[in-house]
Amino acid sequence: MTAELTSPVRLRATDAPDQPAPTEELADLYRGFEKELLVPLWTEIGDLMPPHPRSKAMPHRWEWRTLLTLADRAGHLVPVGRGGERRAIALANPSLGGKPYASPTLWAAIQYLMPGEDAPEHRHTQNAFRFVVEGEGVWTVVGRDPVPMRRGDFLPQAGWNWHAHHNAASRPMAWIDGLDIPFQYGTEAQFFEFGRDAISDEERVTPERSRSERLWGNPGLAPVSRLGRTPGTPLLRYRWEHTDRALQDQLELEAQGVDATLERGHAAVRFTNPTNGADVLPTIRAEFHRIARGADTAPRRETGSSVYQVFDGSGRVTVGDLSWTVTRGDLFVVPSWQPLSVTSEASASDSDSGALDLFRFSDAPIFEALNLSRTETEETH
Amino acid sequence: MTAELTSPVRLRATDAPDQPAPTEELADLYRGFEKELLVPLWTEIGDLMPPHPRSKAMPHRWEWRTLLTLADRAGHLVPVGRGGERRAIALANPSLGGKPYASPTLWAAIQYLMPGEDAPEHRHTQNAFRFVVEGEGVWTVVGRDPVPMRRGDFLPQAGWNWHAHHNAASRPMAWIDGLDIPFQYGTEAQFFEFGRDAISDEERVTPERSRSERLWGNPGLAPVSRLGRTPGTPLLRYRWEHTDRALQDQLELEAQGVDATLERGHAAVRFTNPTNGADVLPTIRAEFHRIARGADTAPRRETGSSVYQVFDGSGRVTVGDLSWTVTRGDLFVVPSWQPLSVTSEASASDSDSGALDLFRFSDAPIFEALNLSRTETEETH
Amino acid sequence: MTAELTSPVRLRATDAPDQPAPTEELADLYRGFEKELLVPLWTEIGDLMPPHPRSKAMPHRWEWRTLLTLADRAGHLVPVGRGGERRAIALANPSLGGKPYASPTLWAAIQYLMPGEDAPEHRHTQNAFRFVVEGEGVWTVVGRDPVPMRRGDFLPQAGWNWHAHHNAASRPMAWIDGLDIPFQYGTEAQFFEFGRDAISDEERVTPERSRSERLWGNPGLAPVSRLGRTPGTPLLRYRWEHTDRALQDQLELEAQGVDATLERGHAAVRFTNPTNGADVLPTIRAEFHRIARGADTAPRRETGSSVYQVFDGSGRVTVGDLSWTVTRGDLFVVPSWQPLSVTSEASASDSDSGALDLFRFSDAPIFEALNLSRTETEETH
Amino acid sequence: MTAELTSPVRLRATDAPDQPAPTEELADLYRGFEKELLVPLWTEIGDLMPPHPRSKAMPHRWEWRTLLTLADRAGHLVPVGRGGERRAIALANPSLGGKPYASPTLWAAIQYLMPGEDAPEHRHTQNAFRFVVEGEGVWTVVGRDPVPMRRGDFLPQAGWNWHAHHNAASRPMAWIDGLDIPFQYGTEAQFFEFGRDAISDEERVTPERSRSERLWGNPGLAPVSRLGRTPGTPLLRYRWEHTDRALQDQLELEAQGVDATLERGHAAVRFTNPTNGADVLPTIRAEFHRIARGADTAPRRETGSSVYQVFDGSGRVTVGDLSWTVTRGDLFVVPSWQPLSVTSEASASDSDSGALDLFRFSDAPIFEALNLSRTETEETH
Repeated sequence: MTAELTSPVRLRATDAPDQPAPTEELADLYRGFEKELLVPLWTEIGDLMPPHPRSKAMPHRWEWRTLLTLADRAGHLVPVGRGGERRAIALANPSLGGKPYASPTLWAAIQYLMPGEDAPEHRHTQNAFRFVVEGEGVWTVVGRDPVPMRRGDFLPQAGWNWHAHHNAASRPMAWIDGLDIPFQYGTEAQFFEFGRDAISDEERVTPERSRSERLWGNPGLAPVSRLGRTPGTPLLRYRWEHTDRALQDQLELEAQGVDATLERGHAAVRFTNPTNGADVLPTIRAEFHRIARGADTAPRRETGSSVYQVFDGSGRVTVGDLSWTVTRGDLFVVPSWQPLSVTSEASASDSDSGALDLFRFSDAPIFEALNLSRTETEETH
Repeated sequence: MTAELTSPVRLRATDAPDQPAPTEELADLYRGFEKELLVPLWTEIGDLMPPHPRSKAMPHRWEWRTLLTLADRAGHLVPVGRGGERRAIALANPSLGGKPYASPTLWAAIQYLMPGEDAPEHRHTQNAFRFVVEGEGVWTVVGRDPVPMRRGDFLPQAGWNWHAHHNAASRPMAWIDGLDIPFQYGTEAQFFEFGRDAISDEERVTPERSRSERLWGNPGLAPVSRLGRTPGTPLLRYRWEHTDRALQDQLELEAQGVDATLERGHAAVRFTNPTNGADVLPTIRAEFHRIARGADTAPRRETGSSVYQVFDGSGRVTVGDLSWTVTRGDLFVVPSWQPLSVTSEASASDSDSGALDLFRFSDAPIFEALNLSRTETEETH
Repeated sequence: MTAELTSPVRLRATDAPDQPAPTEELADLYRGFEKELLVPLWTEIGDLMPPHPRSKAMPHRWEWRTLLTLADRAGHLVPVGRGGERRAIALANPSLGGKPYASPTLWAAIQYLMPGEDAPEHRHTQNAFRFVVEGEGVWTVVGRDPVPMRRGDFLPQAGWNWHAHHNAASRPMAWIDGLDIPFQYGTEAQFFEFGRDAISDEERVTPERSRSERLWGNPGLAPVSRLGRTPGTPLLRYRWEHTDRALQDQLELEAQGVDATLERGHAAVRFTNPTNGADVLPTIRAEFHRIARGADTAPRRETGSSVYQVFDGSGRVTVGDLSWTVTRGDLFVVPSWQPLSVTSEASASDSDSGALDLFRFSDAPIFEALNLSRTETEETH
Repeated sequence: MTAELTSPVRLRATDAPDQPAPTEELADLYRGFEKELLVPLWTEIGDLMPPHPRSKAMPHRWEWRTLLTLADRAGHLVPVGRGGERRAIALANPSLGGKPYASPTLWAAIQYLMPGEDAPEHRHTQNAFRFVVEGEGVWTVVGRDPVPMRRGDFLPQAGWNWHAHHNAASRPMAWIDGLDIPFQYGTEAQFFEFGRDAISDEERVTPERSRSERLWGNPGLAPVSRLGRTPGTPLLRYRWEHTDRALQDQLELEAQGVDATLERGHAAVRFTNPTNGADVLPTIRAEFHRIARGADTAPRRETGSSVYQVFDGSGRVTVGDLSWTVTRGDLFVVPSWQPLSVTSEASASDSDSGALDLFRFSDAPIFEALNLSRTETEETH
């Protein structure tokens, strides 16, 4: 089979620093390499093994209102059903070749469901979550457990769980989906399976609290019938009321002199798996950050990438050389090892507190599990 | 020094099964063993290495009303202060030689504080918790964080944390303390240190929610400023309202056909450390069990011992060959490998639900950490 | 900045199954998506979320003799020094666009050092190892510890350790390097640093046993001065004499009726980190397999990819639809979820035992750490 | 049942510091406590919760020659067989009431087997090991795998494995046994089961290398057929030749300026479980220490107790207030939190190296697993 193969390898003997002299013999050697599907390190090392991560991705911001308008148009033009599976529209990083990748590892999409619509049941090894920046009425059925979704709620779902969505409200609803699709695509780990064609009537009820919340939604309490560590969290809904209270408490404790915030005026909580205290999903970290009115954050960079969505308030975000004003719903991506800093800049239309609320997700668990995590904070405060 | 030592070893050459013939030579050998501080296995193996655990402890029940009466008398006779440290009165298992041990590893005591009294600050490596079967008004100051205590609350405290108590109410208050004192005494692990002579005025306030609850008391949320696994839980109060709701939810889910309870009519939650999902304390497990009206539990035995307190309701408890009727506040101990079964028997004076609510603590984490855990359930249902 | 950006996104409204009807409105919507850097899931799901991994990589075999000939020519034409760093020539999978990737996650290269040459000191976060299929005389200086390399030796080296090579022999020497370069490139985790310009005379000695072997090379013994788990192994050389003996012992034990082999006639050892019993490197698994004369292995597929090198013997290898005869030194790659089976076919020139000896490395620790590991074995025996 | 119980509790109202005034009312209260099986903390706290561990055990040394003489006499008087199970004679700490406990957690015994004798098969949850200070010819059959025992060998055996001994030599053989019998007795964890009445002829062979060594006895190599972490080590023999070489290498590396020893002139290795890098047994740590001729060790104390046996050389040992000269075979015990220091004092009869070689075992894994470990070293060097 290798006889007829046209080698994709292309090598050029060039007169460049750190390269061997471009003789005819070298050119001949390179032809041999090409024929035998070989590539020398010395022509590639600068790109392959840089002094620090140089992301192929760019920092970028997407405006929520524009996304929502396009999603709404899709709501009227594109049906949801078997095959297409979801009316999800993904962020494509400007420098990743038009692929639906927010970063080299993360997928972020707006999903849109019309009144009465169902998104069909399926399961996949990709780890996923939903985060709701506005609206309500949809619930997600995970393993036959209907889980309501409301503004501020974070709904993680570990790989290989059956799930479907249903919009029980009289208005369309949008939310964002985060998955590790690019990571699993790159490492070639993924499995996918179609589920039942329709969800049952029992699953269409709208419970105030899902089964998962009733079993796992009490702080520090584990059901003895369900012990054992699971790689993904069994808690399917992290309610806004708890997140909001935790952030507010951190700022109040800071005001009382308790060391509770990440830095001055910067409260943050991490969503965790109650069975092991680790991240909610094996490959995805999710956090909520609140920057108090007028506060800013010290520039900080990390290996791995993050996507943020503004939940409330307004501010100015700087990532590497780029900077944007952001407001409710806007999304932005922070590539690996690019420094991020944020300033909270309350505008007239913002809520009373004037704080900038940011939902964040990242690929940090991958880096931590594999001993590849590195962080650098510029000490400016 | 060994010359004048009188050996404590005493050996007798006897005419017994599995023993060498009691000759003069053997007696002489035994004298040699005694002199040299030696003991043969063959005279001891029956006791030392039994086919299964035969606890030195007995099953026993203590009646709460009696305990409370004696504690109240102590409240009027025995001051609390430096030296004595606590007005705590411990359960002494009837077959452990009058030592203040509920079981060979566990300490359980009623603690009693008069209005306005303080119990002085100290710290110790012994892991501890408080559980409140009735009353309120006392709070515990742990690391300068005042933590209120109310009926049904569970308040764990890992070793080596500074702590003191203060009764801000106008009535005495009693609660139970559980510690691993016998275990640490037996293994000789323990350290103890006196703290400040008085707690400050700032620590005498009565906050509705402690700092620890504000940082750690939201389901699945960890403060990013306090990441990292800790051997003991950072959450200092597990509120009754959450425990109660979790148990009720399990029974309701069971009624809906969801596999949520431990066995039919038997709901149970375990108190866990949110930083790692493990037990709240490195040596102590704590759980809350609710046996629905009329339900009973299958006889079950485990390596290691437990102490139970009836929180509400009435019932019949059988441990090995003993059996008692129990009601609110009563305590009982289950020695290692003794089978326990419980029947909920609502009496006229019990709450509407008729359920039997049991708080339980045990030494199970020791056995699990050391690969010594074993459990046997008689399948009767 | 986004104004002048030409979007890389290209979408086509087509008349295809599972796609919305290709109306003008849809085309207009797609233009909007392109402009706003958005990509819908429904056009991509087939490729992005397949029913099982469909590797971009192909199975492929490289013949050692051809590689060695080209490496030798490079030895005479291409200097080793600062900038190029190593005379390493990497396998380029035929369907990965000419990139120096054996698989989407793994780098495998032949490295070649002329008599007396040094490869300069550097360090990088990429995890690496060397495996020696023939020759001797080179040693690797890791953290100033000179480690000899001989036929059959496996020499792992966790990320961020300083290292250099030196050929003290009078003949060139070749070996293979394995690294996680593609994985770290894809996730953008990598750091690299140049070391000293020259290694010292003390480091040029040729010790029979390296410091690391003297500290860590005794079975089950850890130096008390160096306790603590490390993500990569502290043992820098796994000697052939141990590997060979372990494989031979497994086959002999199998013959005695002990369950010691992986399957009939198939012995296998995994190289492990003595500080934690896990894989030698956080991202790379390494194993040695011996297929007894005439034995074959059941077809088996796994998530993740592997590279094999024939250490000794001959055989027939089948990966998916491709099949090759292999002999000493030949390398082949098994992409994710492609079934592999191997038959040992002794030829006249093979060693007495007639066994087929295979060195293998893979990205399995990545998949196991992230709960993405799956394996399927066809039961044919 | 409680009615007729005579309480073992005895309390005295005394005129002592930190005690309530000894009034008649107090005496009456104490009678109430006794009747109800209660003990107050304030009378017990000084003993129960001391400022640091005050061991009930004493430091003590046993002379090997005396032990051996008595064991030999037992060899002629006491048969080995079902019921007595083993001709093992345990060290009884002088201040532990004549119990066969070297310390509150550890059992140490000399075991003696006559030529041709068998010790019958049994299993127990107690973790055990054998260490051979002199002689050879016995092997232990663990799970039907005969394991030879020679001078310097360490042979661990995790709980619940079937095992028997057989002396194939023409002379008696002695060795020491270490177990966690007192710990498991105190926590009431133990199970015991009798095995077959006789071991088979196949098990009476004398292999040079046991199955367990052939599978697990190569540094850093794990059999792929036996993966998975096990709480106890699968390697049943740690050979003297490896231990000796590792210690000698540490001292040689120290001489070359490498940081390899624990302190100047003090080499030490820990026996570890290759499946997880942890201690060989869940409750027992085993180490080998070599103190170079003329070197001494800094006083050091730890929570938990240790037993040492002199393997070779002579020296002076100080534990707390006691001090002894020790020579080959002598055993001594170091109680919890008692400082130990050792000086190597070569005598004319000692080996050429003049080093003092010490085998040590301790209960440290219990303390580390439960977050109770503490160490203090007096910095004298």
